[in-house]
Amino acid sequence: MSQEIKYKPIGIIHSPFKEVDGMPIQPSGALGVSGTVELFMEYSAGLKDIDGFSHIILVYHFHLSKGYALEVKPFLEEETHGIFAVRAPARPNPIGISVVRLVGIEDNILHIEDVDIVDGTPLLDIKPYVQDFDWRQAERTGWLSDKFQRARKHKSDTRFKAEP
Amino acid sequence: MSQEIKYKPIGIIHSPFKEVDGMPIQPSGALGVSGTVELFMEYSAGLKDIDGFSHIILVYHFHLSKGYALEVKPFLEEETHGIFAVRAPARPNPIGISVVRLVGIEDNILHIEDVDIVDGTPLLDIKPYVQDFDWRQAERTGWLSDKFQRARKHKSDTRFKAEP
Repeated sequence: MSQEIKYKPIGIIHSPFKEVDGMPIQPSGALGVSGTVELFMEYSAGLKDIDGFSHIILVYHFHLSKGYALEVKPFLEEETHGIFAVRAPARPNPIGISVVRLVGIEDNILHIEDVDIVDGTPLLDIKPYVQDFDWRQAERTGWLSDKFQRARKHKSDTRFKAEP
Repeated sequence: MSQEIKYKPIGIIHSPFKEVDGMPIQPSGALGVSGTVELFMEYSAGLKDIDGFSHIILVYHFHLSKGYALEVKPFLEEETHGIFAVRAPARPNPIGISVVRLVGIEDNILHIEDVDIVDGTPLLDIKPYVQDFDWRQAERTGWLSDKFQRARKHKSDTRFKAEP
């Protein structure tokens, strides 16, 4: 089970975030931030009927991630946590997932909002977001439980400051 | 941007589903179905503090998927839809994501519930599920909108019949 799994980018994600510094931590902190998904033309037939969905899940490659540690100290946090208990990009397999709002489609270009993804990120997959499949009543959110209010405040105070 | 992206399995997902036939279509149809995630020992330090989360997101490789079509006719559906508007496994990059309930951990073994994944599936990543990041109020769910009731009924009638 040590075989390599090979994927190929199917498009590129464009966003106002030219570098990791100053980015929102998660889509919920990126509400209203606009971007586009450029799906390579050869895949555009796969978009049929996706315009019926208000939200889509983007699966992408954290291409700026170099290596990883199994224990990390996340942003805004003093203690270390296991990499599988955090959402940081530097993971054993640097795969990212984000739920974004789909606001329009022109040919192979998807206009999206709530983008927390760095410009130029290689796209691996698009899936329709369906509450019935993807939503759970999470009773416990571990070390993150008391971080939300702080994270939101921090983002609105600082993280978007550099944006025009 | 045609470079290959290479990942490596970090574990194996075990479930009662030895083959694709008879599987639930989605985790919401697999409520209560138990399974385990066997994380390879070398990654076990990455689990620190994950026990604080009631739900986790599994990212995995649809290893039984062979090739893909850009337009497909999903289960229970008469019309074709683009592959990016459906959740079928046969995708350009066959990556699956499922939100499952984390019920316990013993060393490198995670006991999970609500498993809609075939036994032996290679694991690529584990992320904490956090409503604040992952949940959206989806106003529109396209062609799936009127399928939920039918899908639930069908699953409970037939899809689990083969299970002990």
